[in-house]
Amino acid sequence: MKTLEDLFLATLRDVYYAEKQILKALPAMARGAETPELRKAFEHHRGETEGQVQRLEEIFGELGKAARGKKCPAILGLIEEGEEILEEADDSAVADAGLAATAQAVEHYEISRYGSLIAWAKQLGMSKAEKLLATNLDEEKAADALLTKIAMQQVNRKAA
Amino acid sequence: MKTLEDLFLATLRDVYYAEKQILKALPAMARGAETPELRKAFEHHRGETEGQVQRLEEIFGELGKAARGKKCPAILGLIEEGEEILEEADDSAVADAGLAATAQAVEHYEISRYGSLIAWAKQLGMSKAEKLLATNLDEEKAADALLTKIAMQQVNRKAA
Repeated sequence: MKTLEDLFLATLRDVYYAEKQILKALPAMARGAETPELRKAFEHHRGETEGQVQRLEEIFGELGKAARGKKCPAILGLIEEGEEILEEADDSAVADAGLAATAQAVEHYEISRYGSLIAWAKQLGMSKAEKLLATNLDEEKAADALLTKIAMQQVNRKAA
Repeated sequence: MKTLEDLFLATLRDVYYAEKQILKALPAMARGAETPELRKAFEHHRGETEGQVQRLEEIFGELGKAARGKKCPAILGLIEEGEEILEEADDSAVADAGLAATAQAVEHYEISRYGSLIAWAKQLGMSKAEKLLATNLDEEKAADALLTKIAMQQVNRKAA
């Protein structure tokens, strides 16, 4: 990696890989959730994530590059933490609290990555990529806020 | 894990492990950073992290539990991404941009974890833990904001 463009592309590949892993992980998280609102939030976010993957593919297209992921150890670790919750929780309300928290850790990973990619796109004058990434970022922030609401209003109370 | 207290303790151990890993990783990140403000930010955050570890130990004490970490695959993945940047970047300005971004991903992991722990402490009526965790959260948010400022005002411009 010699230029900011190279770093942008490497990070785009990182987040593309991450979104595809999340697409695979969300159905298990939805099945594992007992609180209907939490299950619905995971199902809804799965649909959103499909759109996010398409937007990332559009950016690869703009750059004239093949849409290709780059193994992202952070997302693999985060997903592993979600799997641990499902294995280790002996109470479904406690599992829901842990699942919501892990999903928020995933959202925060993406929020930080999209924040950096947007800053770099701006610096590089890539206005179309900047807009597409901003849409993804807004969705991640909204998903995180929804999970906070579900956790505070329902899941954590049931678990306590 | 049967109760919200169990989940709180498991997550406290997760973040305790994470902060100790960050303590070990920050000196290499500081050495790898060329921009003086970025290097100083990493060095300053190392000192803060020592205080955060002490606050977590205080919470373990309040709970009457030994301060013990729980392997956190997410932080190991995040630190691996930082090491990849240092290996793969052939330009020091590009490395700085990547390092700042990875550090922000780490901050966001902690922001999400402290947010969940604070919500659970509130639910469980653990007001002392809540205050200690809020101090850690405020420091992580401030560290993230400082990195955004350094990235936008200096590092990304130099890399472009």
